[in-house]
Amino acid sequence: MKYIVIVKPKKAILDPQGQAIKKVAQNYFKKDIGDIRVGKYFEIETQESQEIVEDLAKKILSNDVIEDYEVIKP
Amino acid sequence: MKYIVIVKPKKAILDPQGQAIKKVAQNYFKKDIGDIRVGKYFEIETQESQEIVEDLAKKILSNDVIEDYEVIKP
Repeated sequence: MKYIVIVKPKKAILDPQGQAIKKVAQNYFKKDIGDIRVGKYFEIETQESQEIVEDLAKKILSNDVIEDYEVIKP
Repeated sequence: MKYIVIVKPKKAILDPQGQAIKKVAQNYFKKDIGDIRVGKYFEIETQESQEIVEDLAKKILSNDVIEDYEVIKP
């Protein structure tokens, strides 16, 4: 079964990578692009249960001090 | 308006980051987890049109030799 895990910085956390991309985009398009936040995307193809995938997302794919994760069954 | 851009390695491209995570997960769970592929996730909050976002995804957020991108309007 296929699962998608999205990991993104918590709202209150500064996202310097997103800020950098925003600046590059502003220079390229010569206008204010708005806000960009960057996260990670994982595609997992597994025979294991959703519980295992949640556990994987929580313990290995994300850092729960600064990031939120979401498991999606597409 | 909010857009989501997903950038992931093309199917034919090796994904060493995914392979590394797979190994860590196997050691942690003591079983074969299956296949993991890693991509990038961008959340863009903008007043600009979807065309601009597609352009941004194509020219700045992804490398079209090795990556595919997808723009989603959530």
